[in-house]
Formats: sequence, structure tokens, C-alpha cells
Amino acid sequence: LEQAVGSESLVELLARNKRELDAIALKFLPRSSRNKEITTLYEMMRDYPSRGGKGFRGSLCLLWCELFGGKREDALVTAAALELFQNWILIHDDIEDESDLRRGHPALHRKYGVPLSINAGDALHGKMWELLLSNEEKLGAELSFQIFREFSKMLNETTEGQQMELCWTVSNNWDISEQDYLLMVTKKSGWYTCISPSRLGLLLGSASRRSDASALSKILEKQIEFGKDMGIAFQIVDDILNLTASQERYGKEILGDIFEGKRTLMLIHLLSKSSAAEKKKIISLLSKPRQRKTMEEVKTVFDLLKKNGAIEYAWIVAQKHAQRGLALYDSVCRDYALIDSPSFGTLRSLLEYFVKRDY
Amino acid sequence: LEQAVGSESLVELLARNKRELDAIALKFLPRSSRNKEITTLYEMMRDYPSRGGKGFRGSLCLLWCELFGGKREDALVTAAALELFQNWILIHDDIEDESDLRRGHPALHRKYGVPLSINAGDALHGKMWELLLSNEEKLGAELSFQIFREFSKMLNETTEGQQMELCWTVSNNWDISEQDYLLMVTKKSGWYTCISPSRLGLLLGSASRRSDASALSKILEKQIEFGKDMGIAFQIVDDILNLTASQERYGKEILGDIFEGKRTLMLIHLLSKSSAAEKKKIISLLSKPRQRKTMEEVKTVFDLLKKNGAIEYAWIVAQKHAQRGLALYDSVCRDYALIDSPSFGTLRSLLEYFVKRDY
Repeated sequence: LEQAVGSESLVELLARNKRELDAIALKFLPRSSRNKEITTLYEMMRDYPSRGGKGFRGSLCLLWCELFGGKREDALVTAAALELFQNWILIHDDIEDESDLRRGHPALHRKYGVPLSINAGDALHGKMWELLLSNEEKLGAELSFQIFREFSKMLNETTEGQQMELCWTVSNNWDISEQDYLLMVTKKSGWYTCISPSRLGLLLGSASRRSDASALSKILEKQIEFGKDMGIAFQIVDDILNLTASQERYGKEILGDIFEGKRTLMLIHLLSKSSAAEKKKIISLLSKPRQRKTMEEVKTVFDLLKKNGAIEYAWIVAQKHAQRGLALYDSVCRDYALIDSPSFGTLRSLLEYFVKRDY
Repeated sequence: LEQAVGSESLVELLARNKRELDAIALKFLPRSSRNKEITTLYEMMRDYPSRGGKGFRGSLCLLWCELFGGKREDALVTAAALELFQNWILIHDDIEDESDLRRGHPALHRKYGVPLSINAGDALHGKMWELLLSNEEKLGAELSFQIFREFSKMLNETTEGQQMELCWTVSNNWDISEQDYLLMVTKKSGWYTCISPSRLGLLLGSASRRSDASALSKILEKQIEFGKDMGIAFQIVDDILNLTASQERYGKEILGDIFEGKRTLMLIHLLSKSSAAEKKKIISLLSKPRQRKTMEEVKTVFDLLKKNGAIEYAWIVAQKHAQRGLALYDSVCRDYALIDSPSFGTLRSLLEYFVKRDY
């Protein structure tokens, strides 16, 4: 965590990037209206973007851009739009998942109710596209359109992944293979956490070297494979932290995933290792609506996960994917002679941090 | 209604346009996936666009384009995207307003539940932008960006209007002036029903005459005023039809607005005409949650609206706005020598139909 990248630690670098990106978003978002209801909408839209967060996605985009020799300032708007993407989609996710907490504070719909929060998410979603429109002047039409297309692909994948997970919950389906889980996680989290931020950074960083279109498209392809592995690793670690992190740093409810009945690799592993009778018992606990689960019941499941080595198992799977992703990263950087770029090591540290973080 | 425009009636023209636009949208939207949960998402996204509807907005865009000498086929994608806009926003509106019916069938969240429907709305929203991206090849980057900007403005206005209305409901605010109502309606409905479809049609229709940029920007400004009046007229008539239309043709619950406690011009007028005691009684009826209102209570409010001439009053206000909008339309067409265009009369009939329709 305290790994130095140049003169500052990685955590400091992330925080500095995040502050800069939040400032762009908050400057762009409207602040007040003569109409008090509309002012409330603006406050709601500024709420999640004002809560901080780690800013992984924006930083990833900036670093890939720099790695390919691009100018950091060319990528700032796109990186800020990535952070907006996360913010509007989290507003809706928190409603869909009935989450209580986000970044240490009540979820938006716990403060304002569901109807206003759906609408505020839509408004913020619109603002994301509007922010991307401002790329045109600086980056030109062609690159701006490529960026739009990547956001569009990212949104398709994310909503498909969210759909898979929600359908499992709604239909109380626990007959889920590890492969189903990995597909869901790649779509729901991998695309917007790693694949698209990386590809966007590459598009932005290589804009002045468009002659090499075939090499570029090869790297974009490889970034999908790379990003799948890193995204899977990221999400598994996120699910582990939901069980093991300290509440204060994590900012969401610890054990919230068990309350929610979320299909995690750990639960899938536990179920696959359980006898038919145990399995039935675990599923009947998990299937209760979150309000009707007691802390004792949730702890029972947590203890079973620990006892059966499910957390260690998930940890090993996460490390395996992270190592594969990092190896692909190294090989791309070798192939394109990027190892000597000052950003090579910084970006690698950020990727390692995906699985090293403790919140 | 049976007014002939060329060889076909206006209703036939609307239906023909709508079929063509729906076909574009449904061809564009994905149909099936190997994954069954994702196939369900696709079915949800195709649901509202498959239910028909009148297609006012798409037809408006096509007719403004033709009026200004543009090619109908250049406007088809944008007009189809306008219809998609309405479809995704209605999915979310129906949740926010707790509506049961849409176009004669259960609202999407009544079929699939709220979480999946929020997500499907987001996915369809994303597809709207993706469809607009496909304009670039045919229309070029500059015009495509202008279209994006108009959609972005339209979405900002719509979410602000929705916010105003939802805030009144959430805070049980009945202290609403006619002016508040008109601002809310302009934002919530006027922009996407009339202002933006008209402006988009103009942008598309005048693309080959860009030399005349200052005249163009003057008309775009006038379309805001024109569209405000027409949009207000449209929405007031919609609210009247909610009380008076036949259930079968209207496709939503008759008297649903009173069940919902929706702030309409008629209720605002009734409250302004009532004594303090009557007002208190009416508000206490309207303020009950929709599930706890009886049909008898709803009918009581309906009878008061009739008895106090609130429906006639709203009708007169709608006609006044429609006449002002039509006069502005005529004057723009005179100023730019468009009266002889074959589309002049057709578009005028469509605009008149805004306040003449009976469903």
C-alpha cells in the first residue's frame, strides 16, 4: 500500500487523481436553480460524486493514456466521465440491491426515497454523455465518437451483468456454476472497472499515432482479455472485503452481501462443497428477505464460509486471475516497448493494488 | 381526426410513421442471447417499444425535417431514437409514479418487479445513445453532435420537470401556482414532446443549407416558444383525457391521476376556487396513498372538478396555448416561405391534433 511510485505513494497518487476528476465533475454539474425542487435534484446529483471513493477507474484511464505517450490533460474529461458513470449506476444499483450504505453514508434512496433517486440517477446518466460531448473541441470528432462507442459498449455489458445477478436473486436461483459467476462479474464489474477504462486510456494515448491502426486494434483486443482477468480479481477481492474489512474504511455494511443474498464465488464454492442437507439449510437462510435475516443467521453463513475454506479459495482464484492479467500487461508492454515508460511501473502498481487493498 | 392529408388520414399517417420507427428500433435492439437472464433483459427492453403508441414525437421530427426540405430517410434514426427516449423514460416514470398500466398492459415493473425494470430502463437509455451514434456515417460528425446536444438538453429538462412533480408528491405540497404547473409541464413534457422533436427535425431538414446559420438559430429559438405552448396544450389535454377518455382507447387507468394525486391544472384550479374548509377536505383526500384511496373518494374529487368547471377551464387554457403555438408556427412558415411546402398542412394538422384527439 505504501509502495512508492516516483516521489509519492500509490495511495497519494490515486487520491490526487480522484480529487482532480471530482473537481471536473463537480464544476460541470449544475449547482443551484431558482426553483427549489430543481436545486434538490442538483444536490442529489452532486451527492455521490462528493463522497469521494478511490477513483480506480479514472486513474486507470489516465495511466494507460500516459503509458502510450498521450497527454494526461487530454484524458481528464473522459476519466471524469468514467467516475460519473460509476456514480449514476451506483445510485440505481443501491436501489436495486436495497443497500443502506454507500461510502460511509446512507444510500441516496435512503435519504430521498426511491422515486426521486431513480430520476436523479437518470439525470446524472445524461450528464455523463453531456460531459463526453465536451471532448469534441479538444480531441476532434473521430476520437470523441470512439470514446462514445466505448461508453456505449461498457453500459451494455454492465446492464447485462446486473441483469444476470438480479435475475438470480429475483428467481431465488442458487444453481449457479463458477463459470456463470465469472461471466456475470466480467459483465457487471469487469467492463467498467478495468476493460473500458484501459481501452479508453489507450485510445486517448495513441491518438497522435493513428497510422498504426492494426497494432492499435490488436492491443484493444488484448485489453479485453487482460481486463477480464483484472476485473474478476478486483470483484472477488471486493466480495472478500465485504466479509473481512473494517466497517469504517470499507464504507458499506460488513457482511451486507450475505444479508443481501448476493451470489459470490465464496458462497458458490461453499454450496458446491456442502452435502444436500447442508446445502438446503444454507440456501433457506440465504433466501430470506434481508429484513428477515438475523445477524446470528448471517454469522452462521459467515462461519461456514470460514470453516470450509471458501474465503481462502476465493483469494487463490483472485490471485490467479490477477497474475494472468499482470502477465498479459507485461507482455503488451514488452511487445510495444513500453517497459521504459515512466508510467509502466505506476500502472503496474495500481493493478497489483486491485488485489492488495484492504478496503 | 379523419382529416385527410394528401391521400391518407392523419391517423393513418401517424400509424405508418410509427410502424416504420418501431421497426428501426426493434431491428436495432438485441433479441436473444445464449444466456437466459440476458435474453430476459432483451425482452424487457423490447416490451414498451412493441406496444405501439401514437408516435407523435417521431412524426413531428420527420415532418419538420421535410418541411425544411430535408430527406425523410435522414431523420428516421433520430426519430426512432426519440421514440426510444420515451420508452425508457416511461419505464422509470411508471415506477416513480407507481402506475399499473401502460398502453393497455401492465406496466413493466408490474410484470418483472422494480429492480429489473430500473436496470432495463438504463439499458434502453444506453441503446438510445448507441442508436444516435449510427447517425455519424450518414449525416457526418457535425450534425450528429448537434443531435446529441439536443438529446442531452432534452434529458436535462425532462428530469428537472419530473423532479418538480415528484417533489410535490413526496413533500405533499399543494401550494402550487398555475405558473409552477406550467414550468413543470414545459420541462417534464414540453421539451421531449414538442420542442426537441421540432428542433431536431429542423436541424436535420436544413443540414444542406448551413450557410444560413443565423436564420437557422433564430428559428431554433422560436421553436422553443412554439414548443412550450404546444407542449403545455398537449399535456393539459392528456390530463383531461385521464378523466374523460374511454379506458380501452386511452390505455392507462381512467382517473389514475386522481388516484396518484397528480398535480394537474384542473386540481390547481379547483383548489384556488375552493373555500379553506373545502380545500382542506380535498387535499386530505388527495394526500392519501393511492392504495388507500377508494373509488368513491376519487369520484368525489372528479365530481367537484366537473361541478366547478375545472375541466372546461383547463380546456380553455389548452386551446389558448395551442392557438398561440399554431400562430407562431404559421408566422415562422410565412417568414421562411414554407407555406407552399407539401408538409406545411400535414404538420399543422398534426399540431391541431394535439388538442383534438380523444385518446
